[in-house]
Amino acid sequence: MIGKLYDAIEKKNAPIVVGLDPNLAFVPGFLKEKAYAEKGEGLEGAAKAVWKFNKKLIDNISDLIPAVKPQSAMYEQFGIPGIKAYKKTIDYCHEKGLIVIGDIKRGDIGSTSEAYAAGHIGKVRIGENEFLPFDEDMATVNPYLGSDGVLPFVKVCKENDRGIFVLVKTSNPSSGEFQDRIIDGKPLYEHVAAKVEEWGADTLEGDYSNVGAVVGATYPEQGAALRKLMPHTFILVPGYGAQGATGKDLAGFFDDNKNGAIVNSSRGIIAAYTKSPYKDRFGEKEFADAARAAVVDMIRDINEALGR
Amino acid sequence: MIGKLYDAIEKKNAPIVVGLDPNLAFVPGFLKEKAYAEKGEGLEGAAKAVWKFNKKLIDNISDLIPAVKPQSAMYEQFGIPGIKAYKKTIDYCHEKGLIVIGDIKRGDIGSTSEAYAAGHIGKVRIGENEFLPFDEDMATVNPYLGSDGVLPFVKVCKENDRGIFVLVKTSNPSSGEFQDRIIDGKPLYEHVAAKVEEWGADTLEGDYSNVGAVVGATYPEQGAALRKLMPHTFILVPGYGAQGATGKDLAGFFDDNKNGAIVNSSRGIIAAYTKSPYKDRFGEKEFADAARAAVVDMIRDINEALGR
Repeated sequence: MIGKLYDAIEKKNAPIVVGLDPNLAFVPGFLKEKAYAEKGEGLEGAAKAVWKFNKKLIDNISDLIPAVKPQSAMYEQFGIPGIKAYKKTIDYCHEKGLIVIGDIKRGDIGSTSEAYAAGHIGKVRIGENEFLPFDEDMATVNPYLGSDGVLPFVKVCKENDRGIFVLVKTSNPSSGEFQDRIIDGKPLYEHVAAKVEEWGADTLEGDYSNVGAVVGATYPEQGAALRKLMPHTFILVPGYGAQGATGKDLAGFFDDNKNGAIVNSSRGIIAAYTKSPYKDRFGEKEFADAARAAVVDMIRDINEALGR
Repeated sequence: MIGKLYDAIEKKNAPIVVGLDPNLAFVPGFLKEKAYAEKGEGLEGAAKAVWKFNKKLIDNISDLIPAVKPQSAMYEQFGIPGIKAYKKTIDYCHEKGLIVIGDIKRGDIGSTSEAYAAGHIGKVRIGENEFLPFDEDMATVNPYLGSDGVLPFVKVCKENDRGIFVLVKTSNPSSGEFQDRIIDGKPLYEHVAAKVEEWGADTLEGDYSNVGAVVGATYPEQGAALRKLMPHTFILVPGYGAQGATGKDLAGFFDDNKNGAIVNSSRGIIAAYTKSPYKDRFGEKEFADAARAAVVDMIRDINEALGR
C-alpha cells in the first residue's frame, strides 16, 4: 500500500491529504436545512448533511489529491447514522480512486487489536466467507500498549496490502507531556520511532515500509530529526493550516526525493469558505470551490517549500 | 457516576464487571446457525448472533453484577451491523439497571477528543436539540496525547455525570515496552497516574473521582503501588481469568473498604461453557447458565481474597 501512496503523490505532484472531519459547524447551512427537512433535525439528518458535504467536496477535489483522511470521531459523534456516513465516504472515495486513511487511532491488547485490524483494514471471516467491514486502505494506530497492540495491525498490512501510521509525536500542544519525556537520554517519541522502524522492517515496498508514523507539522525540528531516525518510515503530518504550521515548516519531514511524507489539512480545506482569503471570494454555496482553491494553494505552498 | 458504581458494587457485593467481548468463536453454533438462517452468513448474521448471545447472557447474570464492559473492537469488526449490536447491547444493559463501561480506548487531539466524548459519554447538539449518540456511562481513554486529549472527556464527565478510565498500566505482556520505561526515576505509568489524579481532582464523588485508571490484574505489584499513588482514583482491573490473574493477585488494587476497584473478566465468563470446569457441567445450549456459574465463582474468589 505504501508504494501506491508514494506513486499517487508523484502522479498528482501533491504530497497532501485532505482530512474529511466534518464538524457540523463547518457544514453550510443550506445543506443542513435540506438534510434536516428530509431526515429530521437529529442524528439521521446530521449524518445526511455530513455525507452530502463530503460528497460535494470529494467531487470537487479528488482529481488533485492522492488521499483523504476521514476522522472517525467526527462520524461517531452522530451515532450509527454517522458511522454509516463514514462508510459511505470511504466507499465513495474508493470509487474516485483515492487512498483512504482511516484516522481511528485504535490500539488495544493483542486479541482486541486483531479485531480492530480486521474490522478496519482487514477481513473478517464469517462461516465460509470473508468480508471487508470498513475497508480503509490505511489506519492510524496508538502505540501506548506496545508491540502486542500494534503487531496485529502489521500482520493485516502484510496479508491484505494495507498500511498503518503509528502515533509518534502528535501535533497537539500537550503532546510533549508524555511523548517528550526523556528515557535513557532520548525522548519517548524516539523510542516509539525506533519500534516503528522495527515493526515495519519486513513490510518494505521500495524505500518505505507499510508501518508509517504520525509526526505533527507543529513540531518541525522533531520532524526533521525523526525523518533521519526513521529512514524507512513514511510520515503522516497533521497540523498544517488551522493548527498553525506552514510550508516552510515541512521540508525536514521529506526525503531527498521530496516524497516520504504526506501533509494533512482538514479545516483549512473543508471549511475554507468560512475563512480569509477564501470567504471573500466564495459564498456558502460555493464551499467546494473554496476547498478546491485551498487545495491548489496548499499544494503550491508545500511544493514551493520543497522545491518540487 | 463513580459514586453510582461504588454503591452498585456494595449493593450487589460484587466488585466485578463482565466484559461483553463477543468474539464469534465464543458464540454457540446453534445461535450462529439461527442468525445466519435469518440474516445471511455475513455481517448482518454475525451481528444478530452476537446480539442474541449478549441478550441471553445479560438476562442470566444482570442481577449479580453492577456493570458490563462491552469492547467496541468486537463489534466494529462486524461493520455497521456490529456497531448496531453494540448500541443495542448498551441500551438493553441500561434497561436491566447495569452501568455500561464502553471499552473504546479513544484519545485524540482536543477538538477530536471532544467529538469522541460527545458521541460516547456525552451529548451532541443538532439544531435546537441534544442527542445521546451511544450513551455509555463510562469509557476507557488512551493518554498518549496528553492533557488536551483527555480533558475534553473530563469536561463531559462533569456536565453529564459520567466517568472515564484512563489507561495507566495495561494488562498485556508488552505493556512495559513504553509504560515501564523510567523517567526521572519512576516509570512512565506513574507519571500518567499522577496526571490521572490531577485530571480528576475536581470531579470527586465521595472518596473517588470520575477519572479512573486502568491497571492490569496481571501486574499485582504495580497495582498495589498505584493504589497508594492514586488515592482518589477508582481502578478498572482487566486481566483476571483468561489472561492469568486470580483473586489472590487482586487485594492490593482495593482500598481499606474493599472497594475502589472493579475487576473485569470477559472470556472467562462469556465463554465459560467452552472451558473446564464448566464445560463438563454445561452444554452449548446452557452457555448462559455456565456464565452465571462462572460469575458466582468469580465473585466468591475475589470476595474471599479481599475478606469481604
